[in-house]
Amino acid sequence: MVQATDSVVLLSGGVGGAKLALGLHRALPPAALTIIANIGDDFRHLGLAISPDIDTLIYTLADLVNPDTGWGRRDETWNFMAELERLGGETWFRLGDRDLASHVERSRRLEAGDALSTITRETCQRLGIGSHIVPASDRRVQTRVVTDAGVLAFQDYFVRQRAQPVVSEVRFAGAAEAVPPATAMAALGDPGLRAILIAPSNPWLSIDPILAIPALRAALEKSTVARVAVSPIVAGQAIKGPTAKIMAELGMPVNQVGIARHYRGLIDGLVLDHADAGEVAAVEALGIRAITTSTVMQTLEDRMTLARFALEFAATLRRP
Amino acid sequence: MVQATDSVVLLSGGVGGAKLALGLHRALPPAALTIIANIGDDFRHLGLAISPDIDTLIYTLADLVNPDTGWGRRDETWNFMAELERLGGETWFRLGDRDLASHVERSRRLEAGDALSTITRETCQRLGIGSHIVPASDRRVQTRVVTDAGVLAFQDYFVRQRAQPVVSEVRFAGAAEAVPPATAMAALGDPGLRAILIAPSNPWLSIDPILAIPALRAALEKSTVARVAVSPIVAGQAIKGPTAKIMAELGMPVNQVGIARHYRGLIDGLVLDHADAGEVAAVEALGIRAITTSTVMQTLEDRMTLARFALEFAATLRRP
Repeated sequence: MVQATDSVVLLSGGVGGAKLALGLHRALPPAALTIIANIGDDFRHLGLAISPDIDTLIYTLADLVNPDTGWGRRDETWNFMAELERLGGETWFRLGDRDLASHVERSRRLEAGDALSTITRETCQRLGIGSHIVPASDRRVQTRVVTDAGVLAFQDYFVRQRAQPVVSEVRFAGAAEAVPPATAMAALGDPGLRAILIAPSNPWLSIDPILAIPALRAALEKSTVARVAVSPIVAGQAIKGPTAKIMAELGMPVNQVGIARHYRGLIDGLVLDHADAGEVAAVEALGIRAITTSTVMQTLEDRMTLARFALEFAATLRRP
Repeated sequence: MVQATDSVVLLSGGVGGAKLALGLHRALPPAALTIIANIGDDFRHLGLAISPDIDTLIYTLADLVNPDTGWGRRDETWNFMAELERLGGETWFRLGDRDLASHVERSRRLEAGDALSTITRETCQRLGIGSHIVPASDRRVQTRVVTDAGVLAFQDYFVRQRAQPVVSEVRFAGAAEAVPPATAMAALGDPGLRAILIAPSNPWLSIDPILAIPALRAALEKSTVARVAVSPIVAGQAIKGPTAKIMAELGMPVNQVGIARHYRGLIDGLVLDHADAGEVAAVEALGIRAITTSTVMQTLEDRMTLARFALEFAATLRRP
């Protein structure tokens, strides 16, 4: 059973990770969950500071998210974009009227000197989200994708070019100098910490920007708490997004061994889908415990079930 | 008859002035009209650069304006504001979803180094507005209202405090150092210039910020072209807004003589409403020709009729 003093940390990107984040948020007591969110996708657009993964996590946990896309706002309208197009503005990155409030308010507060972590914390409080969403850093970390079409800013690669270019390397500008917010480090050092989970987000695009921050990687490496990743790959395919495509482009096997090798030294256990039961032995040969369940989350119940499964798996992995 | 080579300059504020601006725009050949717009109300809000009078003029001439209010956009939606309120942002100055595109795009371009006059010109071109809308300056001029509630920024006085405080003085920060865009000076120096009109905007709040810019005041003072103001006062009342209230608070008569004295040296003629026919002699005693017509503009036809009337009146005032 989860105790009131128990706490859990989740490293997460956007849509895919937010599904597990919601499961944990609903399965755990209020305030037990700290989500360290990817900021490598953050960018300035139309003069606004946009934090896609933080917003997806906030909208998801506040039950404001568009259930059809997994990002953006439910009951969204697009009159701002229609008028921006009329005025000749840039429209390749679409911002809904409701969603825009987050970007305008965040931009205003950043300009006024507030830290991204402060803004995010107060937004969560305002929206009644008991879990803690903490950006991996208050300093910018920018994902740059080295491709056959050049070195691309993340949103250029991901949205404008629809992840079509062939990836040879992913870089995280600013990561070496970035320092996690004190709340992130405190959550990772909490004596009541029960598990560190890595969401089934894209390891190269969504989790690596977090792990590229030296203090966060070191905290994971040194933690004595059970560390469990949920694999984003099922039967050689990504549940969502370009994970499988990137793995192949980077020359690694598109399977659980590829995921396990990537996280080796950072995780004690890997949760796989039943479809990949045949890979359990190969993962465990790398010194990582592996377990299978259904990792495809369609319903809220799926999310909570997988969350509980990962926590129970972690509980079996308590390190000495 | 208006000749293709004839041109007209109008000094204008927002809603009230935009009515006459639209009448002139429709009555004159394409590109014959240059509107020098008040920028004293411009302010930064939510991190965005907002130019209320320029936008009102653009929306009015592009037939995009909300016909019920005379400002803002037709078929506007307010989802951005609703979400901003949910996030705890400032909501006293309401920005509609469609309207917001103007502020975001303007802010982005100003940040990128474009001049307000360039942005305004290109927006007009984009929207198919043949008339020229020119901000009185590319440098900021900020109206400050000295009141019994302190020295207030314009929008604080006008929107947040609903023009309730008692006004003792109006100041224009930055006006002494401001220089009009070259297009404004070129319009005023155009050999084909036929008339300089002052719209029935609030003389103290909307026209004075323009006239406080030394080069514009000097151009008006020295011009040999007929200069005609349309009075914003009818029978001791303002058609819209706090003009009459401010006149009383500043200790001047709330009538045509008050208006005529204010513009003395800058106008050759004043268009009054029929209701004030009894004041023609008093105005003319000040050396300003006065003429009466119906100055209340309800319909588009009213706007065009008053525009033509003012132009014809100006034609009778050609100066030596």
